[in-house]
Amino acid sequence: MKETEIPSFICGLDATLRVIGGKWKPLILFFLHDGAKRYGELKRCVRGVSDKMLIQQLKELESDGVVSRADHQEIPPRVDYALTPTGRSLAHALSPLCEWGTENSDMIASALSRRGGK
Amino acid sequence: MKETEIPSFICGLDATLRVIGGKWKPLILFFLHDGAKRYGELKRCVRGVSDKMLIQQLKELESDGVVSRADHQEIPPRVDYALTPTGRSLAHALSPLCEWGTENSDMIASALSRRGGK
Repeated sequence: MKETEIPSFICGLDATLRVIGGKWKPLILFFLHDGAKRYGELKRCVRGVSDKMLIQQLKELESDGVVSRADHQEIPPRVDYALTPTGRSLAHALSPLCEWGTENSDMIASALSRRGGK
Repeated sequence: MKETEIPSFICGLDATLRVIGGKWKPLILFFLHDGAKRYGELKRCVRGVSDKMLIQQLKELESDGVVSRADHQEIPPRVDYALTPTGRSLAHALSPLCEWGTENSDMIASALSRRGGK
């Protein structure tokens, strides 16, 4: 597709949200931004995610071309995940949201406790 | 809370995601970034959202201090929604993600069609 208009997306942000929507994908990209990580390492970073969920999210990110999976064909298995160049640009675009969260963490913590931590 | 450490958040991004998590909140913030909008206007912008969902998301954003709701006490009712200063800084932090989506919309459209439009 080469149209200037974004096909079936409301706007650029909507398009991005199709790739990073969900609770875990932005965090996965954030932690891979430091460098490639083995599955177990990544799971320790993204606290609270189940294996089923993490594997599914990684598969989708791989299918969307933002994460690459390298199986080093070793025994015991060594598989690691890294950002592709597109994934790096996406992780980079997440940085202002990280900064906003750090700057506003007290306010957010209070807001969450008001609405019961949800 | 005045600790330097972010209480119970993995990182700044995790904190932000507690505020904008979900499919609709980033889009709501994006469309309010242009200026205050009446409920009906906002619903037309955020295509595909149900009333139940939009009202719930707006209530949470209001409770979190990023959106303000003004009821002008008129008949017929006139209620509009706007970003608070905190909300404006958050919407601003979303801009690079809008740009990323616009720049990568062709790739995203292809990726989505590969995984069945989900």
